[in-house]
Amino acid sequence: MEVIVPFSTDRPKSRLSGVLDPDERAAFARAMLRDVLDAVAAADGDPRVLATGPVGADLPCPVDVDERPLTPAVNAALDARVGGDGDGDPDPVAVVMADLALATPDALRELFAAGREADIAIAPGRGGGTNAFVAADPAFRVDYHGASYLDHRRIAADAGLSVDVVDSNRLATDVDEPADLAELLIHDEADDGESRAARWLRDAGFGLDATDGRVGVVRE
Amino acid sequence: MEVIVPFSTDRPKSRLSGVLDPDERAAFARAMLRDVLDAVAAADGDPRVLATGPVGADLPCPVDVDERPLTPAVNAALDARVGGDGDGDPDPVAVVMADLALATPDALRELFAAGREADIAIAPGRGGGTNAFVAADPAFRVDYHGASYLDHRRIAADAGLSVDVVDSNRLATDVDEPADLAELLIHDEADDGESRAARWLRDAGFGLDATDGRVGVVRE
Repeated sequence: MEVIVPFSTDRPKSRLSGVLDPDERAAFARAMLRDVLDAVAAADGDPRVLATGPVGADLPCPVDVDERPLTPAVNAALDARVGGDGDGDPDPVAVVMADLALATPDALRELFAAGREADIAIAPGRGGGTNAFVAADPAFRVDYHGASYLDHRRIAADAGLSVDVVDSNRLATDVDEPADLAELLIHDEADDGESRAARWLRDAGFGLDATDGRVGVVRE
Repeated sequence: MEVIVPFSTDRPKSRLSGVLDPDERAAFARAMLRDVLDAVAAADGDPRVLATGPVGADLPCPVDVDERPLTPAVNAALDARVGGDGDGDPDPVAVVMADLALATPDALRELFAAGREADIAIAPGRGGGTNAFVAADPAFRVDYHGASYLDHRRIAADAGLSVDVVDSNRLATDVDEPADLAELLIHDEADDGESRAARWLRDAGFGLDATDGRVGVVRE
């Protein structure tokens, strides 16, 4: 299955600006992207980065550049693949966000399998986002503004499309805010992981901090 | 499978004190508890509440009272069930937190099934918690302080127990903090749900707020 991985090269991960400077954010975002691409490939997906500009890294897959915002860029990519002007039913295509640094091949396999059965498979993100989906129907359009998970459910329902929701903590965890960094370190430690993004964080001096309530991070 | 649901009756949900007063927090906590008990029963579990005091609600299952903190109370409950003084292998027992208001029967069925295969099945929570687990071995002990998910993985590894990690966003989402309330409303709306806890929130004037970044809640 072709898997589009959107990646923003201008001001990536701005909500981490309180803990990482711009160059660090760019490097950390690229580390997460590489982890996602590896997980997609390990789940037998064919990754393809959809970037807003040159990524500045040697990636193991093709890169398409589309300078537009996320919503029109993804809709154009969907149009090109499942737009309905080919012969027969189009193959489903997946869209997986580049900051799903916890994504495992197992979780992605479940997503891809769900997307072969239902018209639309969606992995909701924390806070109402749409972290990953699979679509094969030209009637499905994305709108990433606001609570996109609810909007995408409505768009699918209005078009009469069947929806399967993939219940995965790994896919629900997009790394956007400082608290999310703890998730990366926790799961990497628990699984004796080899995540590039977690290694990047540790090399930058981040560690877990359990001094109050939910575990967070501190930087040396 | 017997399913123990620990429930604190003294100062429940104190981290919601910024948005709910003490009586509201108690009522909301009971609504979540009822949702969890319903989901457990729908997943063919036999729920049993382990409360620190009288719950003050008519519950559809037995209630044991143990005034001690969570860790010794749960360890005593495990001892009584899988303590190893019976004949043959003990049946596995599950422990599911009372604030997993998003828990679905499907997610719990997956947990219970994993706990019949591995020595220990764990559903990690956001921030390093242990939101639910299944154990059948007396060598497994709980320690809910700090990053308990990591501690429980270590305790299991040290005892030579096999561990299956259940990757579920539903089970990873314990409702502790104001931002978590949004998760309840989002998923209830998406699924045309009938969650008591979500209905309680809406009746109390809470609604979704998508004005910046991740979707949160506002109260009228």
